[in-house]
Amino acid sequence: MFQTAAKTFFVSAATASAYRRVFLVGLRRYCKKTSTKLRVSEALSGAQLGADVKVQGWVRSVRPQKNNIFLHVNDGSSLQSLQIVADAKLNDPLLTFGSAVEVTGTLKNSPHQKQPVELEAEQIRVVGECNPVNFPFKIKKRHSLEYIRQLPHLRCRTNAFSSLLRIRSEATAAIHSYFKNNGFVQIHTPIITSNDCEGAGELFQVEPSGPAMVGDENFFSVPAFLTVSGQLHLEVMSGAFSRVYTFGPTFRAENSQSRRHLAEFFMVEAEISFTESLEDLTKVIEDVFRSATERVLARCAEDVDLFHRHVTPGHRDTVEAMLNKSFPVISYTEAIDILHRSSEKFTFPTDWGCDLMTEHEKYLVKHCGNVPVFVTDYPYDLKPFYARDNQDHPKHTAAAVDLLVPGVGELCGGSLREERLNLLMDRLKRVGLEDTYNWYLDLRRFGSVPHGGFGLGFERYLQCVLGVDNIKDVIPFPRFSHSCLL
Amino acid sequence: MFQTAAKTFFVSAATASAYRRVFLVGLRRYCKKTSTKLRVSEALSGAQLGADVKVQGWVRSVRPQKNNIFLHVNDGSSLQSLQIVADAKLNDPLLTFGSAVEVTGTLKNSPHQKQPVELEAEQIRVVGECNPVNFPFKIKKRHSLEYIRQLPHLRCRTNAFSSLLRIRSEATAAIHSYFKNNGFVQIHTPIITSNDCEGAGELFQVEPSGPAMVGDENFFSVPAFLTVSGQLHLEVMSGAFSRVYTFGPTFRAENSQSRRHLAEFFMVEAEISFTESLEDLTKVIEDVFRSATERVLARCAEDVDLFHRHVTPGHRDTVEAMLNKSFPVISYTEAIDILHRSSEKFTFPTDWGCDLMTEHEKYLVKHCGNVPVFVTDYPYDLKPFYARDNQDHPKHTAAAVDLLVPGVGELCGGSLREERLNLLMDRLKRVGLEDTYNWYLDLRRFGSVPHGGFGLGFERYLQCVLGVDNIKDVIPFPRFSHSCLL
Repeated sequence: MFQTAAKTFFVSAATASAYRRVFLVGLRRYCKKTSTKLRVSEALSGAQLGADVKVQGWVRSVRPQKNNIFLHVNDGSSLQSLQIVADAKLNDPLLTFGSAVEVTGTLKNSPHQKQPVELEAEQIRVVGECNPVNFPFKIKKRHSLEYIRQLPHLRCRTNAFSSLLRIRSEATAAIHSYFKNNGFVQIHTPIITSNDCEGAGELFQVEPSGPAMVGDENFFSVPAFLTVSGQLHLEVMSGAFSRVYTFGPTFRAENSQSRRHLAEFFMVEAEISFTESLEDLTKVIEDVFRSATERVLARCAEDVDLFHRHVTPGHRDTVEAMLNKSFPVISYTEAIDILHRSSEKFTFPTDWGCDLMTEHEKYLVKHCGNVPVFVTDYPYDLKPFYARDNQDHPKHTAAAVDLLVPGVGELCGGSLREERLNLLMDRLKRVGLEDTYNWYLDLRRFGSVPHGGFGLGFERYLQCVLGVDNIKDVIPFPRFSHSCLL
Repeated sequence: MFQTAAKTFFVSAATASAYRRVFLVGLRRYCKKTSTKLRVSEALSGAQLGADVKVQGWVRSVRPQKNNIFLHVNDGSSLQSLQIVADAKLNDPLLTFGSAVEVTGTLKNSPHQKQPVELEAEQIRVVGECNPVNFPFKIKKRHSLEYIRQLPHLRCRTNAFSSLLRIRSEATAAIHSYFKNNGFVQIHTPIITSNDCEGAGELFQVEPSGPAMVGDENFFSVPAFLTVSGQLHLEVMSGAFSRVYTFGPTFRAENSQSRRHLAEFFMVEAEISFTESLEDLTKVIEDVFRSATERVLARCAEDVDLFHRHVTPGHRDTVEAMLNKSFPVISYTEAIDILHRSSEKFTFPTDWGCDLMTEHEKYLVKHCGNVPVFVTDYPYDLKPFYARDNQDHPKHTAAAVDLLVPGVGELCGGSLREERLNLLMDRLKRVGLEDTYNWYLDLRRFGSVPHGGFGLGFERYLQCVLGVDNIKDVIPFPRFSHSCLL
């Protein structure tokens, strides 16, 4: 019996080590089980006060004090970071601005006013180091949009650009929701196309690079381009569905460094069958603008606030004004009258028949009270072949509409489409495109209906709502002449 | 007094005409007001029984009888058409298959079992004619998918392809919902890129066509390509947000006419930070697949049924089986063992280290019970530089995973990414890409975290759920070598 007791008690060193291992694994499992993995936004919501949690993210500030160390940890789930309080002995020289950490501890009410919740840390593990000397962002420094634009692979780690990307994501979802809730079918219109929608130049052409290219033959047997608009493809679809839309990238090979142009930008386009007048379009355009903006203001309040406070102070008032008034509608002819009556000196001519330039658009917006304004019924000769002939005279117009907005100018362009076979055919004949667009004429030969549509520049929309001056600051990876980083 | 009465009574002809005009305008307004414009799906819902309505759409069948004429009108809002009953005197020779009509009348209970509601027409207006001799679709004829594929501008007017497009739209929305509900930020990764993600060929190059090209210089100053994957751009973002995704077109200049390949196809890609193992990825992949499929089956029941009944009879059972079992996980090494043990004669070798080919993938899926199966931990040398080294031996593997599905083979590919700076740098050095990917190494220099991601081919997903054999039949405008219609 003594022997047995001795055996039981005096376990070998190996067995002890095995026991220890089992105990530690058990303990680790237990700890793992009780530490709920939370995102920073979930932790900040306060719903888990008192819980043992694990939070993972990147250090935004480090403040060592005599007894404690304070960290702010951000994981991109919200603009706000979570404050971590730890015993000074948990400090680590690797805990630097930009480093990645995993913190376990208990969520507590914070004694500080600024945030209601803080994490009392039991353990802080540095997951990924960040040498503060080499890291191009510096703690507590506000970097300009121009500076961070030079660092496309890191700029999402700044407050401003992470806010922008959350807003962009929410605005995208809001636009999809609007169309879905209103019975539109989403169509993935193609990027590569053999059409040249606008009949204009400024196209990118596409061919395989290197070996896939066989001789002089085109890969697609025909010259192929990057799309400038999904309109014609949507018109195909509007012959079967009454309401369709697309939301994706479009391209212009414009040799421009402007603050309003990109070589690759996102466009929301819709096409609606059985339209009766331009009002059927302006109503949808205004609704999309309003519903997306209201949702973004409601769901990304903090992120939008960052822009309205720090990037463009005062812009909030402009946005409120846009939402509080209905958008005025003026005809192109009225617009020309307004420009003629003004005392402003314009660089470009303002005669009837001339295109409205950015300077004119900006003047018209201001004239109408700095709210978005629709301009309708442009000169027939200014508009592409598909715009519907108003058959008026002596001032011959087409049923086209643009939406001009504060700060940006043209946000959106649309038109009723010429659904009458004979008129469309005559116009295509006049420009020698009858054969090229024979398939398009088919759409009018077989069950043609009055229809119309529009395209809205998504980056310009974000510029307009946030007050961002340069279009390169509202897209994750801007492409323009002489620049294609990453 | 008499005179006054006479004056009142004997109004002039001009005034009478004016009164008549006012009366008619009033009557028209009244009529307009009481005819609610309804979509076919709304009319069929039965909610507006007894109401005076206006329905607009395209004629899918015409059946004139002695006293009545029966039409079916479809507007793309659902697979089902609305039955119109009208007095025979409303017949019109222009009321043909494919013509566009506007019908006003009263919604009634239908005496026919097939549909609960019909529209008793008061007026039928042919909005757009359709000559049945020239129209390439014929009434009551079922056209093959191959035939309608030749008519990309009209095929959306067939039942099968309009169902496909509604399903595609709903599946798209379902995928966005999944990611949004799970805290992912949507990133619009660029189409034009200076990266060559896979290190492989088969890239499309992009340059302006014609005048925008200045001399021999590249438009972007560097060679620019169409993206083959948004992964590296998502990895950038996963250094600031813990969960990001993108859903858009990707490109391969493959000279292939296969039933599983396109030059332009849609991909869902996600990247997740703070992963612990491949399970963190397989869980998300399986969840996306399930949630999207369940939603599509629930919300597009009729449309999916058309495919499961008429296009691939019996496929419904396959889909049910996929949803009822959890997806098995086998390692690549186990997969190779299974292939070795099988009695099947394969064309391609099945030695450890060889890539799995379509024939192998299909065998493995069958072997596992014809459900989707994950294959993990592929040979290190088969995987690109970014795949995480498992540091095992003698069989050296990387933490990569593919999802193989019935009928299609590879649906999805992913991996943990090498987050360890020294390992990544060594591998890039070995292939001479250290400088090219210096920016990518920066992501590991500054706050690197364990992370991983995957890409899911959206067209293959639709093929898998609907049982469609040819990938060209699940995309609105297919692009492949020698074909870029419209």
